[in-house]
Amino acid sequence: MILIKDLIKDYEKYSDKEVEVGGWIKNSRFSKNVGFIELNDGTFFNPVQIVVGKDNEDFERAEKLKLSSAIIVVGKLVLTPNSKQPFEIQASKVIVEGESTDDYPLQKKRHTFEFLRTILHLRPRTNTFNAVFRVRSRLAFAIHKFFNERGFVYVHTPIITGSDAEGAGEMFRVTTLDLDNLPKDDDGNVDFTQDFFSKSTNLTVSGQLQAEAYALAFRNVYTFGPTFRSEHSNTPRHAAEFWMMEPEICFADLDDVCSLAEDMVRYIIKDVMENCEEEIKFFNSFVDKNLIERLTKVANKSFKKLTYTEAIDILKKSGEKFEYPVKWGMDLQTEHEKYLSEKVVDGPVFVTDYPKEIKAFYMRLNDDKKTVAATDLLVPGIGELIGGSQREERFELLDQKMDELGFNKEEYKWYLDLRKYGGVKHGGFGLGFERMVMYMTGMSNIRDVIPFPRTVGHCEY
Amino acid sequence: MILIKDLIKDYEKYSDKEVEVGGWIKNSRFSKNVGFIELNDGTFFNPVQIVVGKDNEDFERAEKLKLSSAIIVVGKLVLTPNSKQPFEIQASKVIVEGESTDDYPLQKKRHTFEFLRTILHLRPRTNTFNAVFRVRSRLAFAIHKFFNERGFVYVHTPIITGSDAEGAGEMFRVTTLDLDNLPKDDDGNVDFTQDFFSKSTNLTVSGQLQAEAYALAFRNVYTFGPTFRSEHSNTPRHAAEFWMMEPEICFADLDDVCSLAEDMVRYIIKDVMENCEEEIKFFNSFVDKNLIERLTKVANKSFKKLTYTEAIDILKKSGEKFEYPVKWGMDLQTEHEKYLSEKVVDGPVFVTDYPKEIKAFYMRLNDDKKTVAATDLLVPGIGELIGGSQREERFELLDQKMDELGFNKEEYKWYLDLRKYGGVKHGGFGLGFERMVMYMTGMSNIRDVIPFPRTVGHCEY
Repeated sequence: MILIKDLIKDYEKYSDKEVEVGGWIKNSRFSKNVGFIELNDGTFFNPVQIVVGKDNEDFERAEKLKLSSAIIVVGKLVLTPNSKQPFEIQASKVIVEGESTDDYPLQKKRHTFEFLRTILHLRPRTNTFNAVFRVRSRLAFAIHKFFNERGFVYVHTPIITGSDAEGAGEMFRVTTLDLDNLPKDDDGNVDFTQDFFSKSTNLTVSGQLQAEAYALAFRNVYTFGPTFRSEHSNTPRHAAEFWMMEPEICFADLDDVCSLAEDMVRYIIKDVMENCEEEIKFFNSFVDKNLIERLTKVANKSFKKLTYTEAIDILKKSGEKFEYPVKWGMDLQTEHEKYLSEKVVDGPVFVTDYPKEIKAFYMRLNDDKKTVAATDLLVPGIGELIGGSQREERFELLDQKMDELGFNKEEYKWYLDLRKYGGVKHGGFGLGFERMVMYMTGMSNIRDVIPFPRTVGHCEY
Repeated sequence: MILIKDLIKDYEKYSDKEVEVGGWIKNSRFSKNVGFIELNDGTFFNPVQIVVGKDNEDFERAEKLKLSSAIIVVGKLVLTPNSKQPFEIQASKVIVEGESTDDYPLQKKRHTFEFLRTILHLRPRTNTFNAVFRVRSRLAFAIHKFFNERGFVYVHTPIITGSDAEGAGEMFRVTTLDLDNLPKDDDGNVDFTQDFFSKSTNLTVSGQLQAEAYALAFRNVYTFGPTFRSEHSNTPRHAAEFWMMEPEICFADLDDVCSLAEDMVRYIIKDVMENCEEEIKFFNSFVDKNLIERLTKVANKSFKKLTYTEAIDILKKSGEKFEYPVKWGMDLQTEHEKYLSEKVVDGPVFVTDYPKEIKAFYMRLNDDKKTVAATDLLVPGIGELIGGSQREERFELLDQKMDELGFNKEEYKWYLDLRKYGGVKHGGFGLGFERMVMYMTGMSNIRDVIPFPRTVGHCEY
């Protein structure tokens, strides 16, 4: 049996030869004398046309097959230079591998994305979701390829953790305690020393801190794995479980971090455009008419940079009415981020050097003592795609910051060690993988780019 | 600045030219007139020799630098055809980027793996762990490369799940309920409808069932992500958090599953041997003297097959004294698995067609009605490396099996749908990624192949 993707790549080689393909019926039209079946085997976006003649002994059986039935077809590949598709297969045999039924939920009509979210196990069989999840797969590979070509070491940072990378809350607890019989200590509190890890543990929100330890050993590393937030935000942009990609580089400052992010974004866009041509065309036709134009521009134009302070000035002078009024010191909201990338720059823009108060403890203090060497990459249509920073590599400054914030220093001793035993300038960024999939496809709801999304109140399958 | 890996690949090009490198001091020897620094920048296993002459104005400062100090060196690359290393760098400048201290825990002496487990953030700087984690990284990439070249779609199956893929217990609970104030229902039980997902949820033990849904849409898919078991097993082979790789293929029977596993194992072994030559040589010298011989054999010899029934006969007739006595119907223990692969076959062997009672519900019933189309790949030194099966694609048989086992059919309706709407013969396997890393390196404790291992009572960093 040959995969349809291989057939399509090399169809001229098979001209007038017998081939065997297996797949699922996407569509079929039978008249008295001839039947046409559109067969998709999942390896290529477009289906292949199968022609079943009246004289074929399987004609009657094939005519009765419901949508999504699985068949194996043996037949001759014939070039069709005057048709839309370059070839068809004239079947000599149609073998039924698995029938489908009349109540198959994906009949020939448009289905809303909302409806398709109720059949997560079947929606990858639709054009849209087939395209989304092939792009998602290729995008993941493109990321691995990019970093591998540059000699980065891929580190599997832990999923279950005893600490909180950002000092933020909103984490899921992981436990094996029997909730109906919780062990208590002498003070009546839950006794976590009896839990599986002999302590209280959570699902990770970021692998960055651990990745830093590995960067100090391998120079350039990245993590790529699931991360979790238990925010009760029920929006098209929030999921409780999502994948994050975080590189960390040594002997590097904020400019190097920005360059790496820019190189990566352009590389993966180009890679996916080349390797998922049919899918990207489909999205451009049916989901986002400007997709190819937008992606092509991003892939070929260098990214702009603005400091936060410049950005605030621009927003103030814009005359635009924002829901959140603009003043120095505030965190930028999505409306501001979109305005900057869509109206001001008309493309991706790095905003750099944010006020230290609104950024994480590990970010490097700038000489002005008011801002830190942080950056967000803002892109049209999405807002923040990437967040990164140069890390504070100066032991005393980091130590002092932790004191100010009341950190449990014992827990972060190892993190300070990285500054004590040959610390170097280093930094990195985080790319929310689902945001990148949305950006590449034009899909606007995060639930539609995750195979089995987990959101407040939803953990099906 | 140039990466040492790039310098080593192309050093002749830089002969007598000025280069700039940055890295950490692995070792240094200073005499009255000259100093030698072994510098490692993390991008290549072996360090580069830096020569600091007495006339260099940084000589005295360089002499005082402690192990693991970070420096940037500017100097002339000089070929040294008569030395062990092909070149050295004669420093004109030694710039201190970050000093280290006398109490740096990795002084020049042998450290036990037990001790190194107490400094997880520093151990990747040692030769052994640097090699382990570079091999781990390359192995992950080799897996992605293998499946990508074959057109498989990478699916991120969910980590948080409401169901249990194997019907086995031993799962971690995921919750946002306040354990000090658990909500109770009218019967006094914990009210999980008030939990984040409005139900009781766990960490996944396998992505297989969800991967099957995607295989039925894309034909060939794989998952690769973290999985979890809360077994209280404190052994060198058990971790609570580990990575698993699970492909799933359609229009495929058990033989196809075995072929895929064999192709993959050989491909990734060859890939790592080619791309981590220094690391593999190191393991062969210091960890496992037979490593290269063993891996070479596996990469070049086709794998044997035995049915479970044949294996039981061989074990019975072996005259060997096993701790667990051998009889048909038992599950094979590690001692039996090792005997078969080490003494009987002397290489990898697929054992196939196990008694249905000891295997999972989704495995395809053989015509003998006593065994299922399951396989384990056993390898010398490890035992089971891979477990796979052809899945039961016949609706009635699967439905009946679920009834027998008292499954909640509502919860598995979607899984039955995959058999109802164009089901096909399909199957797959699971590779415990850490076992593969152990197999590739000769390392014998799973704690030493995971960056930040999670085991009973241990969740540091």
